[in-house]
Amino acid sequence: MARIVMKFGGTSVADLDRIRNVARHVKREYDAGNDVAVVVSAMAGATNQLVNWTKQASAMHDAREYDVVVSSGEQVTAGLLAITLQSMDVHARSWMGWQIPLRTDGSHGSARIADIDARKLVERMGERQVAVIAGFQGVSPDNRITTLGRGGSDTSAVAIAAAVKADRCDIYTDVDGVYTTDPRIVPKARRLDRIAFEEMLEMASLGAKVLQVRSVELAMIHGVRTFVRSSFDDPDAPQAGPGGLPPGTLICDEDEIVEKQIVTGIAYSKDEAKITLRRVADKPGVAANVFGRLADANINVDMIVQNVSADGDFTDMTFTVPASELDRALATLKDGGVGSDYADIQGSADIVKVSVIGIGMRSHAGVAAQMFKALAGKGINIQAITTSEIKISILIDAAYTELAVRTLHSLYGLDTQ
Amino acid sequence: MARIVMKFGGTSVADLDRIRNVARHVKREYDAGNDVAVVVSAMAGATNQLVNWTKQASAMHDAREYDVVVSSGEQVTAGLLAITLQSMDVHARSWMGWQIPLRTDGSHGSARIADIDARKLVERMGERQVAVIAGFQGVSPDNRITTLGRGGSDTSAVAIAAAVKADRCDIYTDVDGVYTTDPRIVPKARRLDRIAFEEMLEMASLGAKVLQVRSVELAMIHGVRTFVRSSFDDPDAPQAGPGGLPPGTLICDEDEIVEKQIVTGIAYSKDEAKITLRRVADKPGVAANVFGRLADANINVDMIVQNVSADGDFTDMTFTVPASELDRALATLKDGGVGSDYADIQGSADIVKVSVIGIGMRSHAGVAAQMFKALAGKGINIQAITTSEIKISILIDAAYTELAVRTLHSLYGLDTQ
Repeated sequence: MARIVMKFGGTSVADLDRIRNVARHVKREYDAGNDVAVVVSAMAGATNQLVNWTKQASAMHDAREYDVVVSSGEQVTAGLLAITLQSMDVHARSWMGWQIPLRTDGSHGSARIADIDARKLVERMGERQVAVIAGFQGVSPDNRITTLGRGGSDTSAVAIAAAVKADRCDIYTDVDGVYTTDPRIVPKARRLDRIAFEEMLEMASLGAKVLQVRSVELAMIHGVRTFVRSSFDDPDAPQAGPGGLPPGTLICDEDEIVEKQIVTGIAYSKDEAKITLRRVADKPGVAANVFGRLADANINVDMIVQNVSADGDFTDMTFTVPASELDRALATLKDGGVGSDYADIQGSADIVKVSVIGIGMRSHAGVAAQMFKALAGKGINIQAITTSEIKISILIDAAYTELAVRTLHSLYGLDTQ
Repeated sequence: MARIVMKFGGTSVADLDRIRNVARHVKREYDAGNDVAVVVSAMAGATNQLVNWTKQASAMHDAREYDVVVSSGEQVTAGLLAITLQSMDVHARSWMGWQIPLRTDGSHGSARIADIDARKLVERMGERQVAVIAGFQGVSPDNRITTLGRGGSDTSAVAIAAAVKADRCDIYTDVDGVYTTDPRIVPKARRLDRIAFEEMLEMASLGAKVLQVRSVELAMIHGVRTFVRSSFDDPDAPQAGPGGLPPGTLICDEDEIVEKQIVTGIAYSKDEAKITLRRVADKPGVAANVFGRLADANINVDMIVQNVSADGDFTDMTFTVPASELDRALATLKDGGVGSDYADIQGSADIVKVSVIGIGMRSHAGVAAQMFKALAGKGINIQAITTSEIKISILIDAAYTELAVRTLHSLYGLDTQ
């Protein structure tokens, strides 16, 4: 028998019927003799309603009180699921963050988990009592309710799985796993049976929305085997045979992955914008000045490319910032810089970052060369490149997004047969 | 400067506009230099929604989880009011029951307050921080959220006023005070400026809905001066002059009431039903059997009248039970009793209990005699009578409710001039 943490998001608990469906998933694991903890989000729509109320109350609301209001959504779901489980003869009890306690720092609205005291949880789970835990919330050092930020329930689930030393953390969501790329733009995308932590972290960071980046980081650090599956599956359908898992994707240590692919997935992100500085003076301190001012304005810079200009005295410099920060970044750099450090500044949000990810790249040369050749063959111009040990990211014109992703998906043999 | 607890019910915090209005009432007291704690209910409708969800989840829901779900309503209001106050430059902080802590017993759904540790509250109030407290909730000995039962926010407010040794507990509600009787049936009803604790307790117990009986009991025990006023008043209107209070009713010790009336108010309740047992065998043990069986079924009996029958061997016996329990009481007594202990059983919900209340009755004889004479003059038959030191209650045909209440209201000089 195993110890399992199950997590259900907002659409999975959207109404009483859906909550009953969740309860049937939980009962199946419970009846199989497993020790079970369940982490739940607020009912779909509830959090938005609560957030809107705090905004109506005051545009500049206190994050501590925001957390009090918003965390109530998960409280409701936890109580309702516990009641529903009891009506199915499953011994269950709800837990708020402060009752566990799940301790966080005092960064209200986006708190980080400091410590989970899992003793009481483990004791109750050992007594065959399902722990129904309100996700997304914790308690600060001064005994106030905190929330972990958007998507924080994934993080709650993985952190609790680590704390109770769970054999597996099952993330039930509205898709049935992690795909080689976004199936909406590549119909031939395949569901991955397994993906390594490092790969998933890159996928999540680079645009795949299935899991929060922080939850993947935590899973990697603590080695929490995390299984992504659909909450819309029939709870009573037979689960896979011995050692196997039902349809879904297991995020695990790379040692658990027998057949390693060179490339595992293709991610893309339209959340970036490009800024180009024209005729930058080729003298020391200019780059430090540009990026220093952006850092002071709390704007993250991602990719940076600098080309030597034709005449040798000036360069052009291109870099990316989050699309939502483009206007602020341009304003920050126009003040003072234009006319002295550089001649002109241009910004554009019509770009996309496309990334090729795979731990197999570590031991295979030529992945990048293949990529550049294939894209050139389609007439796609690469505006910038960054690489790490297990990924290559490029910046291209947004109009070519689908073509580039489909081309690369085929190139690396990811298409379904 | 005074220490004041203010309480606002569900209609007073029904939406963000109403919450802003509440905040203006709080700010007025805060700006006057008072130490302020505010107790809030859930937004009107929120509790019903939450209760319905628990019923949908399971008809036989666990009261512990019911409390988790239902208490979230007050949590939301407390956070929203704190945010609104802060936006008006009032230093404010929300408190849940477990944060105070407001400790209760473990009777989930209708918990009784065991102890309030007011030290932290008093400390913060002394630092000019308004305490915004979620009403209706506490924490049980095993660290679970409890609720105090319907109308529990009044009880929270009075208990907190007692714990922080408040100078006054202001109950803001949708009426502007306590009236001599229900103004909907007696247009000449007058608002009372003051009423003694004992009188208010009888009024609340006997049908007046303005305050929960438990909150009045607590106020009496701890001597908490409780002021009932309307939350719909203009928060910025001038309050009354030195020593006086704005429109409303002060519930206080009778020593504070200078001009004592013989009769203070007339209450009525249609929540009672009458049961008559015909031809009860005039032998020992019959009454014990009847009321023993009702007690076993957990049905409260209020008034009891027994008449000697004409022939001397049998009596008729009449008593009242809550109208909602009539069918269950009849079923309980039919089994076994009919044919042996009594010949027949009859039940009727078409009755009303009308009560005349006043501490002045203690020192004035003849109040009852006046009452009976006046009602006889209107042709109203009295079916049963109970009295205490400060009240007389009678049972009459429900059709005469308005006539009886109006007649008594005039009789004791309560009509407005």
